[in-house]
Amino acid sequence: MLLHKISDVREQIKAWKKTGLTVGLVPTMGALHDGHKSLIKKSVEKCEKTVVSVFVNPIQFCPGEDLDKYPRTLEADEKLCNDLGADIVFAPSPAEMYGEGHILSNDFLTYVIPPFFYTNKLCGKSRVGHFDGVCTVVNKLFNIVQPDFAFFGKKDMQQLIILKKMVLDLNIPVQIVECPIVREPSGLALSSRNKYLSEEGKKNALAISRLLFNIKSCYNNGINDIKALSETVYSFLDNNHALEYLEFRDRNSLEEKTVADNDTIVFIADRVENVRLIDNIELS
Amino acid sequence: MLLHKISDVREQIKAWKKTGLTVGLVPTMGALHDGHKSLIKKSVEKCEKTVVSVFVNPIQFCPGEDLDKYPRTLEADEKLCNDLGADIVFAPSPAEMYGEGHILSNDFLTYVIPPFFYTNKLCGKSRVGHFDGVCTVVNKLFNIVQPDFAFFGKKDMQQLIILKKMVLDLNIPVQIVECPIVREPSGLALSSRNKYLSEEGKKNALAISRLLFNIKSCYNNGINDIKALSETVYSFLDNNHALEYLEFRDRNSLEEKTVADNDTIVFIADRVENVRLIDNIELS
Repeated sequence: MLLHKISDVREQIKAWKKTGLTVGLVPTMGALHDGHKSLIKKSVEKCEKTVVSVFVNPIQFCPGEDLDKYPRTLEADEKLCNDLGADIVFAPSPAEMYGEGHILSNDFLTYVIPPFFYTNKLCGKSRVGHFDGVCTVVNKLFNIVQPDFAFFGKKDMQQLIILKKMVLDLNIPVQIVECPIVREPSGLALSSRNKYLSEEGKKNALAISRLLFNIKSCYNNGINDIKALSETVYSFLDNNHALEYLEFRDRNSLEEKTVADNDTIVFIADRVENVRLIDNIELS
Repeated sequence: MLLHKISDVREQIKAWKKTGLTVGLVPTMGALHDGHKSLIKKSVEKCEKTVVSVFVNPIQFCPGEDLDKYPRTLEADEKLCNDLGADIVFAPSPAEMYGEGHILSNDFLTYVIPPFFYTNKLCGKSRVGHFDGVCTVVNKLFNIVQPDFAFFGKKDMQQLIILKKMVLDLNIPVQIVECPIVREPSGLALSSRNKYLSEEGKKNALAISRLLFNIKSCYNNGINDIKALSETVYSFLDNNHALEYLEFRDRNSLEEKTVADNDTIVFIADRVENVRLIDNIELS
């Protein structure tokens, strides 16, 4: 069932809740790929009803980012959701979410702001305000759908950690379900932004997952010195790459690690053909 | 029933919700007076179950404010709530609300931040961050109690307007019930901070409500020029008063009025014996 109005979603959810059905939410920006598919499957499996939201959220895009050219494929997305057994595809307009003609700034809109310590690093460093936009829209979706469970992929690991922190800090009655990164057989992590890559770009992008797998294998072979682990990556990155960051951080606090251990996650952001790609690997 | 633990509240609420009972929430900082009493009564009347929260919220106090000396009278508060028919008094510790040893800053805590346009004026001007703390704790309480209705007094009118904006912006499934200011027969608006006043201070404080009533009566007599209405106040304020602001603003947007009309609220903050007192009047 494709719904565009918040009030229609509320009505349906209310009816479900009345009969005690559990509700799962999979928040997406559409352009659904096998990564999203795995989240939707998980929700359909775990919950009696599943809502997939499809909303390209303007307030999480920074100036100069790809808001306008972000892929929009609602018809295909809806079909995919139906095929997987989702019960509602919620695809609101920006006006439905933020009010007609509303000025989208913290001058006129209430924001949910995650802690600076979690957002002033990794992707948050170059994408100032991005996670404020993410937390605000996810908070809104939680309030609209009131799900028992919400499903997020580990591909956006910093986002996942920040959302878990939001749920904890604001006592939100939703359980976050963390889902593994889905990769192509080649190792490339699935992302809606992969569509921007040429065939050659995709080939070059493989270096990203390969260097992460290599770090993990070095770690498994007993190397925990971060400088040594970091230096392994340069053999993977030629001048088709513009590395933004490669960092070793704690899985809960996002603190920088001095020595790699089982709580370490290695985060990377890299540009190939000027497409910004992120990936990560858990050393545990 | 006096509860200190979030989990105990959740459990009780869950049981109520299962049988379809409506829940009202009255968020307070304790030191309950007849103003709070009117809110609790309204909730007991309107809802099948009523929760009164009593929590002196540290993050809404600014440096130098009265956090430590803020009156704490839990035993009397609990008795009052029971007498009025409230079902739960929820009195958590700061550690229960914000985590043991947690650093209470936006470096390490997710905040709900109302729009600057609503907070950079009136009380927000001198109490920087105050409404961020209010919105964050009320958001938490909403998530813990999941009330159908929440009751707030018009005494803290800027707070009420900001909370309504938060509910709208974040699609919070709670209906805000606005309750009239309760005044002593003398006209003095009830406030927990009135306890700080001497008998003479209380007498001096009467000028505040009197000047507001006078403005309203001038307006009712056809004066809508704000300069003229403002000038009426000086005959009320002697050197026992330190006026912080007297402003004419829109009841929804908080925009400054150029001409007084039925959507105008007159806001005042004044110090008597160095106790900060606020009051307001709706011209409609």
